[in-house]
Amino acid sequence: VKCRKCGEPAAVNMRQHRFALCGEHFLEWFIAQTERVIEKYRMFARQDRLLVAVSGGKDSLALWDVLLRLGYEVEGLYIDLGIDDEAYSKQSRKHVEQFAAAAGDAPYRVLDVKATYGKSVPELALEKRGRKVCSLCGLVKRHVMNRLAYEGEYVAVATGHNLDDEAAVLFQNTLHWQTGYLARQAPVLPSTVPRLARKVKPFFRFYERDTAAYAVLRGIDYIYEECPYSKGATTIFYKELLNQLETRSRGAKQQFYLSFLQAREEQGLFGEETQELELSECQNCGQPTTASGLCAFCRLWEDR
Amino acid sequence: VKCRKCGEPAAVNMRQHRFALCGEHFLEWFIAQTERVIEKYRMFARQDRLLVAVSGGKDSLALWDVLLRLGYEVEGLYIDLGIDDEAYSKQSRKHVEQFAAAAGDAPYRVLDVKATYGKSVPELALEKRGRKVCSLCGLVKRHVMNRLAYEGEYVAVATGHNLDDEAAVLFQNTLHWQTGYLARQAPVLPSTVPRLARKVKPFFRFYERDTAAYAVLRGIDYIYEECPYSKGATTIFYKELLNQLETRSRGAKQQFYLSFLQAREEQGLFGEETQELELSECQNCGQPTTASGLCAFCRLWEDR
Repeated sequence: VKCRKCGEPAAVNMRQHRFALCGEHFLEWFIAQTERVIEKYRMFARQDRLLVAVSGGKDSLALWDVLLRLGYEVEGLYIDLGIDDEAYSKQSRKHVEQFAAAAGDAPYRVLDVKATYGKSVPELALEKRGRKVCSLCGLVKRHVMNRLAYEGEYVAVATGHNLDDEAAVLFQNTLHWQTGYLARQAPVLPSTVPRLARKVKPFFRFYERDTAAYAVLRGIDYIYEECPYSKGATTIFYKELLNQLETRSRGAKQQFYLSFLQAREEQGLFGEETQELELSECQNCGQPTTASGLCAFCRLWEDR
Repeated sequence: VKCRKCGEPAAVNMRQHRFALCGEHFLEWFIAQTERVIEKYRMFARQDRLLVAVSGGKDSLALWDVLLRLGYEVEGLYIDLGIDDEAYSKQSRKHVEQFAAAAGDAPYRVLDVKATYGKSVPELALEKRGRKVCSLCGLVKRHVMNRLAYEGEYVAVATGHNLDDEAAVLFQNTLHWQTGYLARQAPVLPSTVPRLARKVKPFFRFYERDTAAYAVLRGIDYIYEECPYSKGATTIFYKELLNQLETRSRGAKQQFYLSFLQAREEQGLFGEETQELELSECQNCGQPTTASGLCAFCRLWEDR
C-alpha cells in the first residue's frame, strides 16, 4: 500500500476512508483534518482561550499537541484522581509533565482531587459502597472541568474523545433506547447557561487506531496502561463488538455514528427530547444542576 | 434448575424471564403466551381466517401448531422457491406435508414459484445478475403472500418471526439509522389499503432458542438445514453479535427490541416518518406499490 500523496510506502492505512498515507503526510493530514472539524462544527475560534483535559493517554496528548501546533490558545488540565498512585495516576501525570516540557513548556495546571476535596476517587468509592468507581470518577471530572473552565474564563473545554468512544456511547444509548441521552450526545455541547462550560470533541471523527498512530508517529510518550478500573467495562465490550462490525464491513463504525448525527439533524430525530433541561444553581458550589438544592457532586461530600 | 410450576427438573431455562419450566409446563406456557400476545397486540380474532406462511423450519411449524391448538381458522402456505431442490426446497416441503398429516390433515396450500411464474428463485437470480438472491426471494415471497391473502380473503398473514429475527433487523436498521424502516418495523403491519394484507408476528417476543425448544419438545419434525444462500448472511452475523450481548447481559436482546417499541410508541419516535407511503396499484397485478406503473415484482418478469 502506498501513500496517496507521495507514493512512498504507507504508514497508516485508513480503510474507512479508502486511502493510506506515509508517516509525514499522515501527520499533516491529521492536523488539517482536525482544523477542518473545528471549523466545520464551529467548535471555537483562533483567539478563544481553551482548556484541554489531558489524562496522559494517547488521545488527549495528541489533541493537546495538535491544538498547540495549530496555534490555539490552549492550556492543559490534568486531574489527579489518585488511582493506584505509583502505577497509574502519578505515572499518567509524569507523561503529561514530559509532554509539556518537550512542547517548550506548554502551560498546564493540575488539580489533585484528594488535596482539594479530601479524598481520592477510590477512597470516595470505598466510602460510597454501591456506587461504581467509573460513575463517581465521571461525576468528579465533569465537576472539576466545569468549575475550572468557569473560574478561568475559558471559552471551551476540549476532550480527546475519538469516534470509537462516541460510537460506543451511542451503541449503549441505542441498545436501551435512552432517548434523552440520544438527544444530547454531540461533538459540541453548547453553554446553555452562564456557568455551564462549552464542551468540544475535535477528534470525534478519528478512529482510535488513527489517534494512536498520530501519537506514535509524532513520538509522543503516552501512558499505555488503561485505568485499572476500566477492566471489563461495558464500553470496552461495546468497542469490541463495533470492531467486529468494522472488520466485516469497513467504515461501519463511522457510518453508525455519522448517520446518527445526520438523521438527528435532518429529520429532527429525538427532537421531542431536546428541549433544554431545567437547570438551577447548586446552593453550595453554584454550578448548574438538574437537582434542587445541592448538585450531585456537592452531595458526595455533604452526607458523610 | 427446577420448574417454577411443579418443581420437577426444568427442561427450558429462560434466563431473560428469570424462570425455568419442565417440558410439559413449557409447552403450556408457550401456547398461553402466544395467545396473550395475539390478544394484547390485537393481531386477529377467533373467527378470522388466517394464512400462516410455513417454510418447514422450526418457527413457522411451531406457529402453525400453536395456532391450530388454539383453535384459530388457519391454513398453511408453503411457497416452493426451487432452491437446491432435493436438498432443500423439496425437503422443506416434505416436512410441511408430514406436519399437516400428523396434525390430522391440517389444510394448507403450496405455491410453486417455477410452475407459476416460469422460473425458480435461483434461476431468476442467475438472470438478474447483480441482484442478491435473498433480496429477490424476499420480494417474491412478499408478493405471493400478499396476492394469496387477497384472493383467498384471509384477514391476515402470520409469520414465524421470533425476537432474534426482529432484533437483528432492528440492529441493521439502527446501524444505518434508516428512519423510514425504523418507523415501520412492527409486530403488526396493518392493511392500510384494500389489497395490502395485514401481517402479524405472534412469536415476536420469543427467543429463537425457545421456539426451537417448543418444536423439539412437541416432537415437530422440522428441517434443520438452513437455506444454502443464507451462509454468511449479514442478519446471521448480527444475530451472533446480539447473542454476545445476551451472554454478557441476559435479557439484552429483549430489552433492545422492546424498549425500541416502547420509545416509539410513548415518545412518538420516528413519528415524522410514519405518514403513510403513497401507494398506487400495479398496472399489471393490481397490488399496491410505491412505484408508478409496474410493481417491483412484475418488473422482474417483464423486462426479459
